[in-house]
Amino acid sequence: MSRTATYHTRVTWKGEHWGHIQMGNGPEMDFSAPPDAHGHPGVLTPEDTFVAAVNTCITMMFLWTTERFKLDLVSYECEAEGTKLIELDRTEIFTSVTLRPRIVLRANDEERSSVEKRARRALESAQKYSLVANSVKSEIRIDPVFEVVY
Amino acid sequence: MSRTATYHTRVTWKGEHWGHIQMGNGPEMDFSAPPDAHGHPGVLTPEDTFVAAVNTCITMMFLWTTERFKLDLVSYECEAEGTKLIELDRTEIFTSVTLRPRIVLRANDEERSSVEKRARRALESAQKYSLVANSVKSEIRIDPVFEVVY
Repeated sequence: MSRTATYHTRVTWKGEHWGHIQMGNGPEMDFSAPPDAHGHPGVLTPEDTFVAAVNTCITMMFLWTTERFKLDLVSYECEAEGTKLIELDRTEIFTSVTLRPRIVLRANDEERSSVEKRARRALESAQKYSLVANSVKSEIRIDPVFEVVY
Repeated sequence: MSRTATYHTRVTWKGEHWGHIQMGNGPEMDFSAPPDAHGHPGVLTPEDTFVAAVNTCITMMFLWTTERFKLDLVSYECEAEGTKLIELDRTEIFTSVTLRPRIVLRANDEERSSVEKRARRALESAQKYSLVANSVKSEIRIDPVFEVVY
């Protein structure tokens, strides 16, 4: 049987172009629009939040798949870039989100030849099962760099 | 001519099921999975981040449209609930995000009869031009409650 689960956030307007958001799992913070859209620097914005949702979801799924695939992860960093298209009628859409993970794995002599292939499969699996990647219209591109240490 | 703009975030794995994210506009924070998915309470999660992206984007667009529509906004609060469906093959998707804004407006005697109608139009416009609402596959439902004070 398929199942459902729900997640909640609450926004309160603070005046001018300032809001405050409480996340269901606990943290809360101020937000605004980007400075070039009548907002403020230094705080959460809807644009960054959308890109962060993809980046954090792929990260958590990849950590989970490395455990299932018995990969010895040394480090993981990932830059994500979301590209929005502004149409002539002023509607906007994120057409793509490109992720550039830098992944360092440890391998012994036996695993040396297969570890990068297994890590690529783990990354594909992370994308396939990512809730956020599956919930956005944007094309998700993952362009990884692997390093294997011994 | 259509135009594009880009937004960036950077994730760093901190060990176990912990990550750290830096948003392009400045803020940074730790994140994890939800506690019932091998994560931790009290921090940002991908699930909350997705729902927050929709909620913050509709908020900022509504603030902007109230200014254009010359509405006198007194307060705005909005609960958002994202529902994810877990399929039999374990893939997941946010099928809907329901927003329940409570909107208080001030009106003089002349505006009294038209202010709620104008506020509904402002909310429809906010949804139409919301970058995040346009970028997700989820059905966006907005179920507002209006109050007019004099």
